[in-house]
Formats: sequence, C-alpha cells, structure tokens
Amino acid sequence: MSLYFEIIKTQGHARAGILHTPHGPIPTPVFAPVGTQGTVKAVPPRDLHELHASLILANTYHLHLRPGDELVRDLGGLHTFMNWSGPILTDSGGFQVFSLAEINKIDDQGVTFRSHLDGSKHRLTPESSMKIQENLGADIIMCFDQCPKPTERAEVERAVERTTRWAQRCREAHPDDSRQALFGIVQGGIFEDLRARSAAELTRLNLPGYAVGGLAVGETKSEMVNALDFTVPMLPADKPHYLMGVGEPDDLAQGVLRGIDIFDCVIPTRLARHGAAMTRDGRVNMRNLPMATDPRPLDEQCTCYCCQNFSRAYLRHLLKAGEILGAYLLSIHNIHFLIQHMEAMRNAILEGDLQQYVDGFMQRYLQLA
Amino acid sequence: MSLYFEIIKTQGHARAGILHTPHGPIPTPVFAPVGTQGTVKAVPPRDLHELHASLILANTYHLHLRPGDELVRDLGGLHTFMNWSGPILTDSGGFQVFSLAEINKIDDQGVTFRSHLDGSKHRLTPESSMKIQENLGADIIMCFDQCPKPTERAEVERAVERTTRWAQRCREAHPDDSRQALFGIVQGGIFEDLRARSAAELTRLNLPGYAVGGLAVGETKSEMVNALDFTVPMLPADKPHYLMGVGEPDDLAQGVLRGIDIFDCVIPTRLARHGAAMTRDGRVNMRNLPMATDPRPLDEQCTCYCCQNFSRAYLRHLLKAGEILGAYLLSIHNIHFLIQHMEAMRNAILEGDLQQYVDGFMQRYLQLA
Repeated sequence: MSLYFEIIKTQGHARAGILHTPHGPIPTPVFAPVGTQGTVKAVPPRDLHELHASLILANTYHLHLRPGDELVRDLGGLHTFMNWSGPILTDSGGFQVFSLAEINKIDDQGVTFRSHLDGSKHRLTPESSMKIQENLGADIIMCFDQCPKPTERAEVERAVERTTRWAQRCREAHPDDSRQALFGIVQGGIFEDLRARSAAELTRLNLPGYAVGGLAVGETKSEMVNALDFTVPMLPADKPHYLMGVGEPDDLAQGVLRGIDIFDCVIPTRLARHGAAMTRDGRVNMRNLPMATDPRPLDEQCTCYCCQNFSRAYLRHLLKAGEILGAYLLSIHNIHFLIQHMEAMRNAILEGDLQQYVDGFMQRYLQLA
Repeated sequence: MSLYFEIIKTQGHARAGILHTPHGPIPTPVFAPVGTQGTVKAVPPRDLHELHASLILANTYHLHLRPGDELVRDLGGLHTFMNWSGPILTDSGGFQVFSLAEINKIDDQGVTFRSHLDGSKHRLTPESSMKIQENLGADIIMCFDQCPKPTERAEVERAVERTTRWAQRCREAHPDDSRQALFGIVQGGIFEDLRARSAAELTRLNLPGYAVGGLAVGETKSEMVNALDFTVPMLPADKPHYLMGVGEPDDLAQGVLRGIDIFDCVIPTRLARHGAAMTRDGRVNMRNLPMATDPRPLDEQCTCYCCQNFSRAYLRHLLKAGEILGAYLLSIHNIHFLIQHMEAMRNAILEGDLQQYVDGFMQRYLQLA
C-alpha cells in the first residue's frame, strides 16, 4: 500500500504524525487549502510550496464538469495539469451534487443532476465517482456518500444506510490503494448510535483512512464538537482521521484535540476575496476605515510575504479599488495563518503541551480575556 | 541633478543607455509596466523584480482620487506604499482627466472635473499636478499637458500653446530635479510644424527629459510612425525620449528605431485579463478551442514562470473558469515578453544589428512570411 500513516506522538486523543503518500510526506495534523477548479484561488503553486502547504484538495464535481476528468487524465493527471508536485486529495463529488446542482433524481444507484454551469444533465454513481477520481489521479480519493442535514434523524438514517452500500461499491470499483488510497466517510449526523453504526459498517471495509462527514454543514459549533467527541474514537486509531470542510481556526483546534489529522476548507481564500483577514485576535475586516491610514502590517508578528512587505493602508486601498493583488495578498496571509496554526499544534503535541496552546489560542482568538 | 542619462551606444537614431535614478539604474530602451492604482494589476512586486522590470508607471489621476496623494505621502510615498524599491514614473493626470472624468470646465488655469468614481468635484492645475506628484514621490514626474485629438489641427494648435504655458508653470512650481526629475511633453499631433514649435518652446526650459505626447490615441500606425520620424530629432539628443502609452510589440520596435528610450502601456496586463497572450507570432487568444487539449506551454521558447510550468490547456481552463490565476499567469507572460523584446533590442543596438533584429521580429510578428 502506497499510503502509510506514521503516528509519532499522541497527547490525549491528539496525534502528531506523518502521512506518507506517492507525492511526498504530509506532516499531520494538516490543513489542506482547497483548489476547487484545479487552482487554489489566486495563489500560484510556487507560493503554496513557500507557505508549506503539504496537501491540497480539488473538487471532483467541478473538474468533472469543467474541463472534464478525461481531459485531465489525457494531460497527465491533476498533478501535472495544475503543476502541483505535492499530495492531492479529491472529494467524491457527492457534497457538491447535493449542494450546488439541481437534483433530478436520487436513487440507490446514484444521483442524476443538472450542471450548475450550463444545465446539462449528468449522473454520478459510486462507480463513476471512482472512475472520475482515478482519472484525476489524486493521492487520496473519497467514497461517494450522501450528506444529509445532520439534525434530521430519519434523513440521516437513510443516508447512513446508503453511504455504507455506496462505500462497498466504491471499494469494489477501486480495490487497489497502491496509487490512490480510498478513504471512507462516516455519516450519522449528530446522532451517536447512527455514527456508531456507520463507523462499524465502514470499518469492516478496512479502508486506509476515514473521514467524519456531514459536519460543518449548518449544525452549531457545540453540536459539531459533541459529534466529534463520540465519533472519532469509533474510527480505527491507526488510520488517518479527516474532518471534511472545516477550517475556522477555533474548529481546527477542537478537531486536533479530538484526534483529527486532516482538515480542508475554502475559508482562507474565500474570506480573502471578501477582504477579511484571519489573525490570532480573530477575524478582521481589512476594509474598515481605521485601516486607511494604518502603516503597520496586517499582523506585526506574521512572517508571510503580505505582512513582511505591505501595510494595512495599502491592503485596504487594494480591496477598495478592487485590485487582484488584494485578494492575492490576503489569500497568502490567511493560508499562512492556518498552516502556522497547524504547525504550532503539531509542535505542541510533540512537546506535550497541546492543551496549553489551545487554551491560549482560544482565549485570545475568541477575545475571552 | 539626481537623474543622469548615459548613452552607451547608438545605431542610427536608436540608443542603448542607462538612465540613473534615485531608485537605481534603468537600462534603456525600457518598457514600463503600468500600475494604475499603485499595483501592476495581478502582479506582486517580487514578480516584477523577477521579470526584470526596471521602471513602473503609476497614475496621478487615480491615486489622487483614491487613496489620495496626501495619504500616500504620509505613509512614506508611493515606493513605500506599494513596496516597489525600483524607479517609478508618474504621469501628470492630464490624460485621464480628459479621457475618464466628466469635464466641467477647461480654462487656461486648469481643468475642473468630476471623479469617475463618485462624481465628486476636483480641479487639476499645473501647480496641483506638481504638488500631487511630489506627494507621490516618483523618480520621474510629468508636466501637466493638454492632449488633443492628434489630427484636428485647430485643436492641436491650442493644445500646443496651452501645454507650453503649463510646462512653464510646472517648472516654476517644481524648480528642483534633485529628488524628482520633471519631463516635458511635446504636443503637436501629426503636424510637423506644430511639433517643431512645441519642441522648441519646451526645449528652452532645459528639462531633464522629454516625452512625445498625444500619440497612440486613435491615429493610424503610419501616422504615428511618421510623427515620430520628424518629432524625435527635434528633442535634445542627450536627454531621454519617452513615448507615452505605447506597448504593442511592433510599435515598440518602430519607436526604438526612431530614438525612443522609454515606453509605457497597460496592454500586457489588460490583454492578460481578457485572455490574450503576446507571442513572437502575434497575439493569441488563449480561450480558443484548440487550446483545450494542448499540452504545450503557451510559448515553447519562453523562460517565464507561466511557460515553464503550465500548459495551454490549463491556461484555457483557468480563463474559462474565471480563475484569478489565469490573469496572473498571462500577465506574467505578457510583461516578460515585452521586457525580453526590449532587452533583445538593447542588445542588438549594442551589437550594431538592430535593423536585422527588427526586420526579423516584424516579419514573424506580422506574419509577413
């Protein structure tokens, strides 16, 4: 098996490790910036390397529709296509089909939907999701799952059943992890018994990694943390644990404390394009008027290219003037911030003081002092 | 005087030199990318250095309106504000007032206009243009001029008279070139006698450099080349010659042959945002369908970051998907292309074979073969 997860140190539920992949090692816990359409928005790959990004995510749904996964395959796969030499993870397309597309029909075989781009009709099944992800060629690929509203029990129960059957079909369609490792996705919403059932059924497939799916989709933060409290211990301890779609700095800390190894989210780049910066003192709107005359960097302690070279006043000017450079610089800063945060947590685990780091971080981030 | 123009070699009218400025030397002939609002659109300053950009232009009109030249001054000047350590040239604001703003009143004192941003009322005079450019702090600043339609003789004649009077007032308002060198702008449209009159009147001011203004504003290419033929010899031979607003690769070659040392234009970055690439074989629309499956770089001989790392198919995908990275990569390539073109012409002058270079370039660029 090409994917090998090495746990170096644990502290409580938290783990510091290295996830070895065909495209290099990923120090964990790790935050993966999202390159929805085959590019982390506004950030060139060489900047991602400079930022210590060790894993990026790309979206199966988007790349299947445009430019097409067969084209990407013919051009050498996604690594070559987007010129990213490091590890890549692709999602299954399921989440986007349910959230972006116009659904025509869901049945046990799969989902028929219309593209959000041009209304063209498409069908996604466990087998086609595997095929598409094989064409894209990511190091880690995900089972096709159904992601329900996490608080609607009847809906969640049906999604758990279907997700298990679909995972079995994904495993049959993609039996070999040597080039691409297939991760399972545990559903079950906020319900402990349903999570337990989903985890038990998926664990039987002995997949090389497991995600906690169906969170960060509208439930409260305490519901999410509570679900992690009982779900993560249900996952195989020696396999990597992935919390999908989570990227708020405080949620990353709560996830790491509970044994999550991998996170992804569009939040650093999306916030950047809206003019918001992530800082240890919370989120800051760089368009605010007091920024206009402020010669200080966004964060005086930050070592990123943005903070080392530009003032708040200049950033505000770029944002007010609608300049692309503003989105670029804030994207750089926000990704740097999250990756530094993950590196700090990893070091804290290695040194045995994760709880102190998280307590200090949360107090300052949520301005509890 | 801080500005010193050193001519190293001439070939016919063409000159290879070095323009020494307070922020470093500019090898000439030079193409200056334009940073209208204090940023070369989509291109971070460190990339500009990598591209060998040795001079950039910023717009007085835009920066006066937003974020305000006094703010830029208070923040340490434009070099500090935009984090560009190399030489900067600012225009006078005149061209934008006449082309972008809603004019309320032009009289011999100056121009009253409404901002294209919010309709607010402003007034620009030779004295205020000097004050704004002093606040911005560029190495080279321009006289406030009136730029008429170059083929309307009566209008051009009035503009020549006014431009001379305004240049005298600019010189009085900015008598000292030690920190910022004031260049004059010769008007006269396509009329040889009016160019001669404008050049003679401005030369009397003994300014450290002279621009040919009022071209590349709607006249034909042959009208422009013809105007250069008789205008450039009217300028002091030992001073730098600047052709404003010109950036088409063939026009750059024609200008260099006729003794122009400095050019600026928004064209490389504007074309990039519209998906067009500059190549030795002419302009190429990267959105064209055949690009979709083409694994080759945009230009197989090009050494820029875009061409060294990305395929035509990927570029097309980025452009079709509206991704910022597409504008970034094409901006990088187009600026690289123009700067390489200028460096090649400079080397050709030094080696005495400029005419051969230009002939070869034009034949291929205009596909005359």
